[in-house]
This record gives sequence, structure tokens and C-alpha cells, in this order.
Amino acid sequence: MDKILRIKMGPQGAPSFVIEEIGKYAGLGGRALTSAIVAAEVPPTCHPLSEDNKLVIAPGLLSGSAASMSGRISVGCKSPLTGGIKEANAGGQGAQVLARMGYAAIVLEGKPKTEDLYKIFINKDGIQIDVDNSLKMKGNYDTVDQLKKQYGEKATYVTIGQAGEMKLGAASIAFTDVELRPTRHAGRGGVGAVMGSKGVKAIILDDSGMKMRSPKDPEKFKAANKIFVEGLRKHPVTGQGLPAYGTNVLTNVLNEAGGFPTYNFKEGRFPGASRISGEALAETEKARGGDPTHGCHRGCVIRCSGIYMDKDGQYLTKQPEYETVWSHGGNCGIDDLDAIAMMDRLDDDYGLDTIEMGATIGVAMEAGLAKFGDAAAAINLVKEVGKGSPLGRILGSGAGITGKVFGVERVPVVKNQAMPAYDPRAVQGIGVTYATTTQGADHTAGYAVTANILGVGGTVNPLKPEGQIELSRNLQIATAAIDSTGMCLFIAFAILDQPETFNALVDMINAFYGLNMTGDDVAELGKKILRMERDFNQRAGFTQKDDRLPDYFKKEIFPPHNVVFEVTDEELDKVYNF
Amino acid sequence: MDKILRIKMGPQGAPSFVIEEIGKYAGLGGRALTSAIVAAEVPPTCHPLSEDNKLVIAPGLLSGSAASMSGRISVGCKSPLTGGIKEANAGGQGAQVLARMGYAAIVLEGKPKTEDLYKIFINKDGIQIDVDNSLKMKGNYDTVDQLKKQYGEKATYVTIGQAGEMKLGAASIAFTDVELRPTRHAGRGGVGAVMGSKGVKAIILDDSGMKMRSPKDPEKFKAANKIFVEGLRKHPVTGQGLPAYGTNVLTNVLNEAGGFPTYNFKEGRFPGASRISGEALAETEKARGGDPTHGCHRGCVIRCSGIYMDKDGQYLTKQPEYETVWSHGGNCGIDDLDAIAMMDRLDDDYGLDTIEMGATIGVAMEAGLAKFGDAAAAINLVKEVGKGSPLGRILGSGAGITGKVFGVERVPVVKNQAMPAYDPRAVQGIGVTYATTTQGADHTAGYAVTANILGVGGTVNPLKPEGQIELSRNLQIATAAIDSTGMCLFIAFAILDQPETFNALVDMINAFYGLNMTGDDVAELGKKILRMERDFNQRAGFTQKDDRLPDYFKKEIFPPHNVVFEVTDEELDKVYNF
Repeated sequence: MDKILRIKMGPQGAPSFVIEEIGKYAGLGGRALTSAIVAAEVPPTCHPLSEDNKLVIAPGLLSGSAASMSGRISVGCKSPLTGGIKEANAGGQGAQVLARMGYAAIVLEGKPKTEDLYKIFINKDGIQIDVDNSLKMKGNYDTVDQLKKQYGEKATYVTIGQAGEMKLGAASIAFTDVELRPTRHAGRGGVGAVMGSKGVKAIILDDSGMKMRSPKDPEKFKAANKIFVEGLRKHPVTGQGLPAYGTNVLTNVLNEAGGFPTYNFKEGRFPGASRISGEALAETEKARGGDPTHGCHRGCVIRCSGIYMDKDGQYLTKQPEYETVWSHGGNCGIDDLDAIAMMDRLDDDYGLDTIEMGATIGVAMEAGLAKFGDAAAAINLVKEVGKGSPLGRILGSGAGITGKVFGVERVPVVKNQAMPAYDPRAVQGIGVTYATTTQGADHTAGYAVTANILGVGGTVNPLKPEGQIELSRNLQIATAAIDSTGMCLFIAFAILDQPETFNALVDMINAFYGLNMTGDDVAELGKKILRMERDFNQRAGFTQKDDRLPDYFKKEIFPPHNVVFEVTDEELDKVYNF
Repeated sequence: MDKILRIKMGPQGAPSFVIEEIGKYAGLGGRALTSAIVAAEVPPTCHPLSEDNKLVIAPGLLSGSAASMSGRISVGCKSPLTGGIKEANAGGQGAQVLARMGYAAIVLEGKPKTEDLYKIFINKDGIQIDVDNSLKMKGNYDTVDQLKKQYGEKATYVTIGQAGEMKLGAASIAFTDVELRPTRHAGRGGVGAVMGSKGVKAIILDDSGMKMRSPKDPEKFKAANKIFVEGLRKHPVTGQGLPAYGTNVLTNVLNEAGGFPTYNFKEGRFPGASRISGEALAETEKARGGDPTHGCHRGCVIRCSGIYMDKDGQYLTKQPEYETVWSHGGNCGIDDLDAIAMMDRLDDDYGLDTIEMGATIGVAMEAGLAKFGDAAAAINLVKEVGKGSPLGRILGSGAGITGKVFGVERVPVVKNQAMPAYDPRAVQGIGVTYATTTQGADHTAGYAVTANILGVGGTVNPLKPEGQIELSRNLQIATAAIDSTGMCLFIAFAILDQPETFNALVDMINAFYGLNMTGDDVAELGKKILRMERDFNQRAGFTQKDDRLPDYFKKEIFPPHNVVFEVTDEELDKVYNF
């Protein structure tokens, strides 16, 4: 992982590539690397779909090694959705495979002059870039099926669907999972549109003949990994809740807490919650011969994913995540798991961020395009995106544009990115993260749900403003660092609660690279990343006014707790005081 | 004109009104007043369609008097298109009538809870607010026709069409002209959407029984007005060019200068220019029994408007303005005057800004929705807005959103507002105005075409960066002041070139109000307005990064002069150094 593959897609001549030494970016991985390259090389005021933008795909520092949970990959660029810097993070096989081939990053640069669509094949022997217009406007499932015939069952496929080709703001990039299905997505911020603007439909990664990456100190590494895995197994969230019910274990929890945004963020409890909960989901999966406990990449020990079969016992989609169950479910008043799973499948196929899409349909329902609770109408709205109709293009452009086009005032976005599955009034810590992260409304950037709701890493009253700034700040710093390791963010539950698990993670990094980093050094890395990202956003024109929730969250009372967002602007402006 | 009518449209109870003394806003008119009220009373970060926004309609300081050319009205709010402060300016009868009834401004506040549509009747006896859902989704022409049956031929009608009701970013507010046709629009920035969000379809102004406003010193006023009118009559632009050919006299001039943006700002000369020029337009109008020399309001001595008949000699629309001929014509490669006139009629009827719509169709053509030059396809695109189809809503939301929804990079907007009919590379002074005005790309905010192209008020080489900052700055200051008087901006040609005409204007104001203002005082008023507007925008989150043209104007070479926009960012940031 000491080289960077730069692929220049134009505008002059045919696409070309160059493999460089990692050079000044040495020591960086994942989000640290994507943000460093974007911050250094992309003009902050450029059009996100222009030749000046770059798409950076980077495995984490521990990806490709024997470290458990190290299979997350970062995708960075200037976001077409937010206009700011973006790191979207995905599971699947991409990180492990790319890292084993020795690439710290793939960087797509420039933009072709023609409308041709390209596929890029990367293996131990080199790089092959070919036009393949037969893939045009194919969904991710069909694209992978077609490519598999040529590149086989051992490769990993990184693809965009119709949404990416149409360069829509909600377009994702799909990474195949262990079963070679395009179910793990770098979802947020329209990264798929940037890949589409570069004319790249697919990147095929084949690590045949490449070995697992070796640590500098194998014994120490092995020992640390053992403690790390033990820590994950013994923590109730990573050892029991997530394996049993997946991320959707949260539906009942958040609903109970009154923070489950329902009917486009109008109230905090959904009457149909129990019918779409993780418990109901696991039961349905088991009854139909699916699998509720499944890893999304090799080396995962939490195994929070699963397989969702339709009523006839045929594969429909991966187990829908909590965010998807919420966005396409409760947020739209829909309590039908099959309908939610169908929309998950369609989103994965078209290449769409499920959070953005569910939030968008909520806004469309508020505009009167469908009734809350009408699952068939919601599915038809998602299908419009696949058709590329004008309505589909509006919806695929995200909640912000849908709100503007249909004249809706209640649009739950920050920096034009839709809010995830936690209402910022009932979970005020996550509201601070939504408002202030460099990424636009994003729960993973500083998951204050931990101390606000789950009692992990301490306890902070979710309904009051006190303590939320510090909570979000510390989590944002820690998360930026974790996002650089290739580690799945879900390790956070264990490392926040168990000091020995955190120390084991630091030991793994030290053993792998022959370093002597302390916990403070890890925090310093997180701060460095956030400063770099925030500086990019400022150079792009962002101000403190962009670090705000929409006004209505401060005025509209949210049942059942009947609260508004109470963290003041002055407090929000202190998050970056570090 | 010493009172302000505030109409509260909700959310609690039925709409109500209060008539206040002008109080702290005394001495302000037109843009000075709309911007002062918006800056003081509208929270800069509010949603433009929320109850917190206000729509301010204000005649100028000299409106309603015997002063020639004083019939311009200002409409202000937080813009749904730009997100910043907005003053959109219109001709027609509104200013004179409102001023005679003694109102310095009408302010629409709040927002109804229901979907009812209201009409507001104002005459000497008071204010009547009624629900009238029979007007729903009617065009401006039908709306005025229906209202005329109730309120008669002496009233002035201020209305929105379907676009305003749909709350689209390109929605305008129509003011009836001398013939009671809804042809004069406060076009820019989506002011019609704000009126729509307030649930107000029409404001009917009847000044029966009200007298012309009297000056404090009638003799001095009359003498100054005489010199002022003589000045307008003797200047070649206001005395000859504009009366003979209307604003469209500029098509041949700008085309000759290589600054007529053609095919979505790709080149500066349109092969079909002569077929859509002011000369061709006047000839067509005369041949069909139309009228090429016509005022848009009582008291106009320039008379740059006209009447456009269709091939059968029936009224189709008012004489299309230069901006419209350009936007729907050359910018889309269309050289058919009848098609352009038809789109002008449709825009007026649906209530759309013709500049935004033509620029939007240019972007749609770039996206492949129609071929450049296909007039029938372009007309159909405009008709989609009237239908309220998803495609129509996209287009009616303006060029910026259309570019995002269709993934187009070359979108000629600043602060999300479409550029008018002068390419900023071939007319660099207007580029400075586009970039830096508080209004989003707007030629009227500092019409540097004067010295760049027309040789009025001096000469500055349009192809070079030198001198453009000073030119634009001085014009922006002067314009803000003129926009406060109710005077038509076209007086600028004469007052820039003829000191005695400028002095006559100042004398008129002094004689009317019993003041002793100097030219410097007028400039100070302009500066005060700009500072107030810029401060609002900064509080709304605007930075210097918003005072920029899209990147491609700095990189893409523009024929025939093969130039790029050369004014540096550092220079642009000096415009507000005053």
C-alpha cells in the first residue's frame, strides 16, 4: 500500500494511467487519505462534475491485513450534493482487495470529451481501461452479472447504476459483498455522480496472486487482534445486538426513545415500528430461509448484515440497514418490510443512497405526490429514478432539490444532505453532528446516539442542550481517525466502553506499521483530518451559517417529548474549538 | 406616501391588516425601502417560503407625482432563487397607483395554514381580503380578465400565474400595463413564489378618487421636470434608439460587438441575429398593425415598449424586450420572432422571468432535451411549466436546478440566478456586476454595457480587465439610488452623459420633498442601500466565494474575440471598497 494509481479520463486523448509512489501522502489511509488528496488537489470552487474534481478511492491503514473489521473503504471528492468535501464509506470486499494489491488509493481525474462509458480492470499484472457502451444505463445487478462473465467470480466489482450515469445528487458507488452482489454502497453525497461524470461505469479489482499484508511485528499484531476481537465479542452491542438483529436493532430503541423521525420528521414514534423492527426482520429472514447474521466483508466478526428473501424464498436484497428501514419505512409511514426491502433492492440496483432517497420520498409525500403510508406509490416513485424520467431525476437529486422543485418548506437537510434516522430534537447530540460535520447531515460523522440513547461511552440527556457540543466534538474527532484505519465504525461501541479494546486497536496499528502511537496521537490524527476538511469547505465558500439545522427544528415542537432543538448557534460554533 | 400597509396572512386566524405610519423608514422609497424592510425584519437564514419571509412592494420616491418616468415599482424579499436579498423591479401602472393612494409599501407577512387562495382589494376606502379559489392555477391573462369583471377597467392588477402558485424559483409578479394586460413583471429571483407562499393570487389597486402627489415646491419641480424631459428627448439612446426599436435595439449592437451569448453562452455572435433584431421586430410590428413605440406606464416619455401582433393581426404579447429576444432567441439558437413572442406570452401568462427561462432552456438544450434552434421544442418546454409537470417544475425552478437535475456543468448562473444577455467575457464590466451584485447575475444592477459597448458615460475596453471594477462599482451605487426614486433605469443613458439632466433629477427630488440634496448625497444613498443588502447576504451566509462567475468563464475561450474573463478574484473583492 505504498502506491497511488492515478487514472486520467481526459479531456485530451484516450484515458491513461500512472502509478506513483505514495510520497507526501505516506502514513495516511481511508478518510485521511481521500480528504488529504481532495483538499490538496481539487480546486474548492470547481464544479463537482467538472474535470477539475477528483474521485479518490482508498482502503484504510489496516485494510488487506489480518486485522478483523478492517474492510471499510473511503470514497472522497468534492460532493455534487453538498458542494463541500465528501468522504463516503462502504463495506464489501473493495478495501481488502485493493489494499492487498498494494494501492493506497485509486484517483480518477479529468473527464472524457465523448459520451463513452469505460470499465477499468486492475490486477497484479496491471491496469486495463476499455470502452464498454453495452453497460449503458444498466443497473448495478445487471452490470455485475455481465462483468462476472468476463472477469469471473473472484473479482470485486465497483460500479455505478443508472443514477451515477445520470450524475444525480443521490447517486452512490456500489461495492460487491462476499456473494458478489452490489449491496455495499459508498452512499452519501453523490459520489456516484462524480464517477459517472468521469465516464467510469465499473472498476474491477482482482487480487488473485496477491497476499495478505504483513505486519512489522506479527506476534504483537496477532496478540492485539485477539484482544480486540474478544472486546467486540463481549460488548452487548457488537457481541449480541448487532449480530442478532443487524443495525435495525435500533428501530425499537429509537422508537421507544421518541427519536424515530416519522412522517417526514413530524413525530418521534411510529405506530408501525414493531412490524419493521430488527426483531421482526430477523424473524422474517429466518422463516424464509434467509440469514440474519452475516458479514459484509471477509474478516468481519460482528456480522450485522444478513440476507433478505422475498415471500417465495428467493433472494431479494441484503438485510436492509436500520437507516433504510427508517427512511423508506417509518419516515414515509410505511410498515411493510417487503416493500422496504424492495426499495432497498431498487436503490442498490439504480445506485442510490437509501438515506437520501427515503428522506426525499418523505418530502415528496409532504408535497402531495403520494400519501404517507402508501408503499406501492413509494416504490413507484423510486422506480421513476430508474426510468430516468424528469420526476425520477428530481427525486434522484435528493431531498433539497425535491423540496425546491415542489415548493416544500419542511426539508430535513444540512448542507443540502438529508438527515438520517435520528430526530435532532429528541437526540440533540446527533443534531450537533448533523449541523457541524464537514459532510452535511451525517450520523456516522459523530454518532452521539451512543451517549444520548444507548448509554455507551457515558450518558448525556438527549433532550437537553447541555453536554452535546463536547460529546459531538469528541466523537467527530475519534470517528475521523477510525475512518482512516479501514475499521468498521461499529467497533466504536466496544472501544468507547472498554479501554482495553481501544488500546488493542492502537496496538494493532503500532504493530502493523512499527509505530509508537498513543491514544492522543490518534485523536491528533482525527483533528488534523477535520481541520483539513473544514478548511476545504471554507475555501469552497462555507461559513458558520452552513453549520445550522433548518429553522423549523428550532421552532416546531416534536412529539412525544414536545421539544425543539435547543443548542444555540453560539454553542454550535464552538464544536471546532480544538 | 407616509403609511405602510401590512397584511398578515397567517398562520393564526384569518388574514388581517394594519396601516402604520412609515416611521423609521421615512424618506425611503423603492429599492431603498424594500431592502431596508427586508434587512431589518426578515431573519436572513429563514426559508424563503416560510412565514418569516416578507414580500415588500414599494413605489419609488417620485412615483405618483407628475415626474416623468417615475412609474417603476420595487418588490423585495429573501429570494427563493438566490437565498439572498432581492429587489425585482417592474414597470406598468402599479407604482403610480399605489403611490397616489398614499402607500409607501405593502408588506405581505406570515403564511396561511390552509391552501386557500386570496385576493386583496385596495382603494381609497380601505382594504378587503377575500378567499377566491376560483382563480387557482389560472394564468395571469385569465386571472386579470376574471378580476376585471369584478373590479373594472380602472384598477391595476398585481398577480401571479401558475408558476407563483407552484412556488417556483423563476416565478415573477405581473403588473398590468396601460391596456390592463399583465405584461410588466417583477421578474427576477422568484418573487412570485414568495407571493404564492403567502397564498396571495392578486392585489387589486384602485386609485379612483385619489389625486396626483403634489410637490412642496411646484414651480421648481415643474421646471426641473421640463429640463429632465428635454434631456431624455435629446439623448440618442433615450430619444431615438429606444423609442424606435425598443430595448431590442441592442441585438444588433451586442451581436456586432461579439458579446451576444449564443447556444448557451458558447459564442458571441448569432448567425440569425438580424432576423430577431429590434429593426426586424419594429418592421414586423408595423406591418401587422402593432405599435413599436409605446409606454409601459403613464408618464413615460421614452416609450420603449410596443405591441406585438401575431400573423393574423391579433394581439399576442407586448413587444418582447431585448433580454427576452436574446434568452429565448439567440441563446437557444432560435431566429423566429413569432416563436420568441409566443414564449414571451407564455412566460407572462404563467408568471415567469423571461431571462431565467431562456437561460434554463439553453441549459436544457445542452442536456439534450431539445436541439439548439428547435423553436417548436422550446415552446413545448415552456408549456410544461404551465402544465405543472415534473419537467415543467424543474425548468420553472431555473437554470441552476435544471443544470443539477440534468447533470450539466456549463450553467451560466451567479448566486444561482441566470445571467442576462451579455457574455461576461466579451463585456467584462458586466461580468464584474454579475459576480458582485447582491442580487445574483443581474445586468440592471450595474449596467456596464454603457461604457463597455455603448460609449455612454465614457469608454472602457470591454475585452480587458482594466477599469471594470471602478465602472461596475460606480454604476452599482448610482443604480441603487435610481431604483429608489421610481425612475426607470433607462434615464441612466441621459444622466450619465448630460450633467444638466442628472442635476434636473436631483432638483426634482429636492423640489418634491423640500430638500437640499447634492449629487454626493444621492451616491451616499446608493452606498447605504448596497451596504444594507450586502450585510443581509453575509448574515444569510454569503461570502466572497459567492461573488464569482462559474469557473468555466475563466477557462473556456469565447469566440469571436477568443477571450476569457480576466478580472481576478482579488479585483472582484475590491468592488465594495467604498
